[in-house]
Amino acid sequence: MESKAKSFVHCSYVLSLVLFSFLGIQDSVQGRLLAVSKPDPKNAAAHARWLVSQNYWGVLNTISSDLGGAPFGNVVSFSDGLPNKGSGIPFFYLTALDPTARYAMKDHRSSLTISEYPIGTCGKRDPENPACAKITLTGKLVLVDNNSKEAEFARSALFTKHPEMMEWPKDHNFKIFKLEIEDIFLINWFGGAKPLTVDQYLHPKIRNQLASILLKPL
Amino acid sequence: MESKAKSFVHCSYVLSLVLFSFLGIQDSVQGRLLAVSKPDPKNAAAHARWLVSQNYWGVLNTISSDLGGAPFGNVVSFSDGLPNKGSGIPFFYLTALDPTARYAMKDHRSSLTISEYPIGTCGKRDPENPACAKITLTGKLVLVDNNSKEAEFARSALFTKHPEMMEWPKDHNFKIFKLEIEDIFLINWFGGAKPLTVDQYLHPKIRNQLASILLKPL
Repeated sequence: MESKAKSFVHCSYVLSLVLFSFLGIQDSVQGRLLAVSKPDPKNAAAHARWLVSQNYWGVLNTISSDLGGAPFGNVVSFSDGLPNKGSGIPFFYLTALDPTARYAMKDHRSSLTISEYPIGTCGKRDPENPACAKITLTGKLVLVDNNSKEAEFARSALFTKHPEMMEWPKDHNFKIFKLEIEDIFLINWFGGAKPLTVDQYLHPKIRNQLASILLKPL
Repeated sequence: MESKAKSFVHCSYVLSLVLFSFLGIQDSVQGRLLAVSKPDPKNAAAHARWLVSQNYWGVLNTISSDLGGAPFGNVVSFSDGLPNKGSGIPFFYLTALDPTARYAMKDHRSSLTISEYPIGTCGKRDPENPACAKITLTGKLVLVDNNSKEAEFARSALFTKHPEMMEWPKDHNFKIFKLEIEDIFLINWFGGAKPLTVDQYLHPKIRNQLASILLKPL
């Protein structure tokens, strides 16, 4: 029986691989998501990427050199790519007139916290209810070289999602920053934080989600 | 001329005091706001208190002992009092199963960041637009004695605003925390952060807002 079951699972897996080759879902290989509908919370990587790409503001935390090293959160807008083509890496448009950019220049340690609540898909759940997802990406907040291809990508990502940024005062000297992610804290259902590595987050295997449907017993 | 103007200002001030005595706006004396409409951003204290009392979730930031002292933000629900009777002090209902409470027990330094955006009064402005208000209350995140009058007030404040908290699992051992505010960062219009002391925030002089109307040249 076990051998038959294994054989069935193997066949289904091969079938799913063939199907995906024909469907040509290349964007998932590049670590970009095509789907806009809310993924199954069990697929932590896909769910986390959906949460980041659908949202467009969060709280960016740095270490305050003005306030004795206190953790200092600031409301910021961000973008991780063009709509429905997020890269998973959040980019920001910050001025050193605001403390967050100043703090980050002195100490890169940072985190970005995002809630599912503003997206409007939490139903009547309280924002602190674990089934209303929340994510904290922790890492280093660094300046992006203004002449790089990455800056070009980030400008396009930011200005498409936040058109008014293009009109912000030139003399405020806004610059592009990004969060180099080192750790991910995700709560998207009951039972505590979901284990999720940065590599899994940056390369979400959508095929696994679909394969799991194909692999379900008939 | 200057003497006449001073005399006019003095008379108007006395008149306003008499008026307020008759009106009996006692809650403002206790540092509680009666108004629910958005105050004039020029009145930093009233505007800040409105922002905190109208909102009911934010990002609570602590120092992560798991992640090399990185600033760690977490989506939390809060309440500063019964609806339209906020005390200005945010209370939380946290479990040590979640990292924020654990981190706070090791290092009290903390901040709570709140945006006007979810209230829905920013119009078409981007969440990072300075005219869409944001506030960061920095201080110490401390446990509230469960048998104190303060805990009784906090429970009432939290459970009224977040009724589902009453149903949260008993074995998760949720406890009441509060933020002892030491510094306030408020952006509620163009021109940089508004100067606002903790004392001004905790005792907003609504009378000044109204008095300023009375003191306007006829």
